[in-house]
Amino acid sequence: MSSYNNNSVRLNAATKVAVFGGTHGNEMSGVTLVNLWMKNSDEIQRKGLETKPFITNPKAVEKCTRYVDTDLNRAFTAENLSALGGKDLPYEVWRAQEINKMFGPKGSPDAYDVIFDLHNTTSKDYFNLQMMNYVKVRRHPQLRLEVGPQPQGVLRSNIFDSMRMIIKHALDFIELFNEGVEFPPCTVEVFRVLERVDYPRDANGNIIAMVHPNLQDCDWEPLNPGDPMFQTFDGKTIHYQGPGTVYPTFINEAAYYEKQQAFVTTKRETLVASAVKKS
Amino acid sequence: MSSYNNNSVRLNAATKVAVFGGTHGNEMSGVTLVNLWMKNSDEIQRKGLETKPFITNPKAVEKCTRYVDTDLNRAFTAENLSALGGKDLPYEVWRAQEINKMFGPKGSPDAYDVIFDLHNTTSKDYFNLQMMNYVKVRRHPQLRLEVGPQPQGVLRSNIFDSMRMIIKHALDFIELFNEGVEFPPCTVEVFRVLERVDYPRDANGNIIAMVHPNLQDCDWEPLNPGDPMFQTFDGKTIHYQGPGTVYPTFINEAAYYEKQQAFVTTKRETLVASAVKKS
Repeated sequence: MSSYNNNSVRLNAATKVAVFGGTHGNEMSGVTLVNLWMKNSDEIQRKGLETKPFITNPKAVEKCTRYVDTDLNRAFTAENLSALGGKDLPYEVWRAQEINKMFGPKGSPDAYDVIFDLHNTTSKDYFNLQMMNYVKVRRHPQLRLEVGPQPQGVLRSNIFDSMRMIIKHALDFIELFNEGVEFPPCTVEVFRVLERVDYPRDANGNIIAMVHPNLQDCDWEPLNPGDPMFQTFDGKTIHYQGPGTVYPTFINEAAYYEKQQAFVTTKRETLVASAVKKS
Repeated sequence: MSSYNNNSVRLNAATKVAVFGGTHGNEMSGVTLVNLWMKNSDEIQRKGLETKPFITNPKAVEKCTRYVDTDLNRAFTAENLSALGGKDLPYEVWRAQEINKMFGPKGSPDAYDVIFDLHNTTSKDYFNLQMMNYVKVRRHPQLRLEVGPQPQGVLRSNIFDSMRMIIKHALDFIELFNEGVEFPPCTVEVFRVLERVDYPRDANGNIIAMVHPNLQDCDWEPLNPGDPMFQTFDGKTIHYQGPGTVYPTFINEAAYYEKQQAFVTTKRETLVASAVKKS
């Protein structure tokens, strides 16, 4: 029926899928969806598939903060996962160990096949839903979905609906794949991260400039050498001085002041995905 | 020169003005402006006027949270201001006492004449700068400025610039008033708060619906009986059933989930302000 049959990458069926919400406790779309699905999971069940909704950081959700002791999203290091101390550890380190036991450990036969981790961003979103992302999911079993813009602590119906639709399509895709449907090769346009750019600061580390109005909300759009980048509090413009065009994203993201990041630069690339079929 | 001279309300000159930032520690425009002016206050000084920039909740600013123990903005009650315990009190209660000593007490001869308290809102903003607000300021010496939309923890240059411009004009106005300029009578269109409306909830208090997309971002626009108001997680629309047109505001505001408020309804009114002149 198709000419690429013999070249398809063969992968095992995915039978255990988890959907995480509340990894950052104030990102409300994932928190709300997962809470909803924990009461009634009909919507996320598919034939031959077990889908488990799970709140990863319940203490942060209760407080409606990003985290309690440390960012859970960065807590899954080998060092943390092997740390001794149990409940005396920082809350998110202990939690990372528990989650790793329940859904991993990575590479073990009991590990979940795919984990969707639901996040919101306050910066302008770009989510071009392409199911060939699936290929990436299989290589890196945890797929982080960022949908926005939505302020932290706020639930917006359009963002909620988008995230719900993305999960629906992703689960439908997995079901089809498990039934033996072959997906043809395709190209995917991606943005590869180059570097993080901090806010301009004085000698004491205080921020002295804001994202320039010409750059604010222009996530994923080209920034060319000489374009305005920051505006100092006394009204001066700082221009981008890099060697070539980049595509900034996560511009002026709420959570990133403490991480010393005004935005990240990316470059556009086209990836080629092989055809995939169940082995 | 004018026909209303004899009817002007006579008020004392305003010589002591304070500008507060960080009453909510994650509302970045006021925090940043006040920090800037604490380093160099030339921009906010005016002839015959002493203007003091002040960070009201430094601990919350440091943590970039709304508050530490309790909302400072609601801490200035008679009960709190007379509570014993000093630094053993909840942080913001102690802080309210300190601020009241420094800038009040209300009605005392040493009290500041005008206090501007700089806030951000995550919902759509409506700030029709009318200097006749000054008349209200004199009756209620603390004027709360809400400028947005801006997510908590984020600094946007357009919102920063708006707030800076509002304070500039307000101080210019006070300077002119102190110099004896007479301001003619005028009308002001205001929105008077009617009631707060909570999110629909189940018997356990869990939110079961979101602000309807037709209402989201429609702050200050008319909501008529029968208009969509909420959308439940299973896709049903809940309509507004009130007796007449209202003007919702603070729609889906980040800080208001815990306060059980999806928005407040207001009605439009036109107020008449007398002419004012220095006594």
